[in-house]
Amino acid sequence: MNIAIIGTGLIGQAWAIVFARGGCNVRLWDGDAAALERASGLIARQIAQLQAEHLLDDAPAATARITRCSELAQALQGADYVQENLPEVLDVKKDIFRKLDELAAPQTVLASSTSSIPASAFTEDLPGRGRCLVAHPVNPPYLVPVVELCGAPWTDAASMEKARSVMQQIGQKPVTVHKELEGFVLNRLQGALLREAFRLVQNGYVSAEDLDATVKDGLGLRWSFMGPFETIDLNAPQGLTEYCARYGGMFRSISEEQIDTEAWSPELIAELERQRRELLPSTELLQRRLWRDQRLMALLRHKRESADEA
Amino acid sequence: MNIAIIGTGLIGQAWAIVFARGGCNVRLWDGDAAALERASGLIARQIAQLQAEHLLDDAPAATARITRCSELAQALQGADYVQENLPEVLDVKKDIFRKLDELAAPQTVLASSTSSIPASAFTEDLPGRGRCLVAHPVNPPYLVPVVELCGAPWTDAASMEKARSVMQQIGQKPVTVHKELEGFVLNRLQGALLREAFRLVQNGYVSAEDLDATVKDGLGLRWSFMGPFETIDLNAPQGLTEYCARYGGMFRSISEEQIDTEAWSPELIAELERQRRELLPSTELLQRRLWRDQRLMALLRHKRESADEA
Repeated sequence: MNIAIIGTGLIGQAWAIVFARGGCNVRLWDGDAAALERASGLIARQIAQLQAEHLLDDAPAATARITRCSELAQALQGADYVQENLPEVLDVKKDIFRKLDELAAPQTVLASSTSSIPASAFTEDLPGRGRCLVAHPVNPPYLVPVVELCGAPWTDAASMEKARSVMQQIGQKPVTVHKELEGFVLNRLQGALLREAFRLVQNGYVSAEDLDATVKDGLGLRWSFMGPFETIDLNAPQGLTEYCARYGGMFRSISEEQIDTEAWSPELIAELERQRRELLPSTELLQRRLWRDQRLMALLRHKRESADEA
Repeated sequence: MNIAIIGTGLIGQAWAIVFARGGCNVRLWDGDAAALERASGLIARQIAQLQAEHLLDDAPAATARITRCSELAQALQGADYVQENLPEVLDVKKDIFRKLDELAAPQTVLASSTSSIPASAFTEDLPGRGRCLVAHPVNPPYLVPVVELCGAPWTDAASMEKARSVMQQIGQKPVTVHKELEGFVLNRLQGALLREAFRLVQNGYVSAEDLDATVKDGLGLRWSFMGPFETIDLNAPQGLTEYCARYGGMFRSISEEQIDTEAWSPELIAELERQRRELLPSTELLQRRLWRDQRLMALLRHKRESADEA
């Protein structure tokens, strides 16, 4: 499979790794030649590290599947699928998608990594708008497999299906979002939980540290291999309907206190920042991010082994 | 440390295992002699299984630390801490706490496993109300370490601190909830996320299967070892405040669509039940629960190893 990566910042680099690891031929393009050059080095280094972590089999082969292109048309030649990663600016998206639609062969699927701009905002007037969609990754996609696929109202089913199939072939976990909506699914779920977390700290019920413990030593364990619906389905003898009969009333009652929509106050944010800096000084943020990525890698290996046993 | 377990249903049995595994002397009492007898056998079997899963070191020694008591006063004799697990009925709680407060030595902490009745509802009139609190586990506590500690307004700080210390000594993860509130912390966070999950399926944005994938292959990965506040703190270069500046507006905007408080409709529950039964027939629920517990055990071993490496 031939893939074109358009834009080689952090997300573009990560996508290149994911596709090359998945056996695809990857062509990289960036309007900035120096950025393209830098990206190649960073990608090769990250691929080698993933091999060291047993999350990639053959680093030289993966690296060899990636080529740089100085011309956009060259990157798109023969591409089955394009993943665009330019800055989150509407006019930038409009401009690049116009060019992509002009230059790419008619059957090529054109996907954007945007997290905040719906496909309808930058594809409406394109002759090939039916093949355009958003494929929103979680950073970094070589460690977090979910990809949210969301088309515009005019995106054709075949392109959505092809994008889903491409993601499955490279080992990512595609999720189909059937209609455009702000935040897609992941950030809406995260937002709902975060707002309650902020509220509980604001009202003095719990510290940030203890709230995190409630999730990492409790609620988040099952969710890391089942998701919320399967969790409740298994939490009552007869399944989900029985669970809702038992606990739906409590959740409805609680929801009446979960309806504020104000912005988080500067005081609340400052208090949370203070609590976090007590737990982790600013100077240790970078090192803790490396720890996080190590833990993510270990968790992925663990999940792969657990799935193999099942 | 001497522990009394009052009520030997599923939760009481699980607590007995947790305390015995943690090196405590455990006395079991149940008003129903046959239930007490049955519980002993089930506990011994579960302890042996935990050893087989490398989640407990010496099954015979742990089992030997547990003794049955036919009289309540006998169970309470010399107890440092009492964990009560009778049915979720207010009058039952009032009655047993009156007896516990009469019979237990003054320094004994009296904790209830209740998930739905605040301590203030069944301890107000007791002479020893200052030592009474809720210690709410997640089922089963020998696989899910978080314990929510929540006192009544009159619970003294020393009892809260002692309960926290007891939980830490046996390897559980205590979380202090500073004021009584429905659902404590865990179920309020779960409820906030579940309501958005139900909403997204109801409005046709995503299937139950894909929503679960969004969590288990995305959002839930970091949460299984960090929690939501540390996650966002590490997701912007300068930490939490910068994260809020970047994404607070999006979450606020989304929150305006997350304010309905209606009960989940029978039609929605039926649709979710239909989708779940397509993925997992009713006849396989029991087997899938065993799979879930195997996965939880494997995840705990993984987390223990990862923590050892850090």
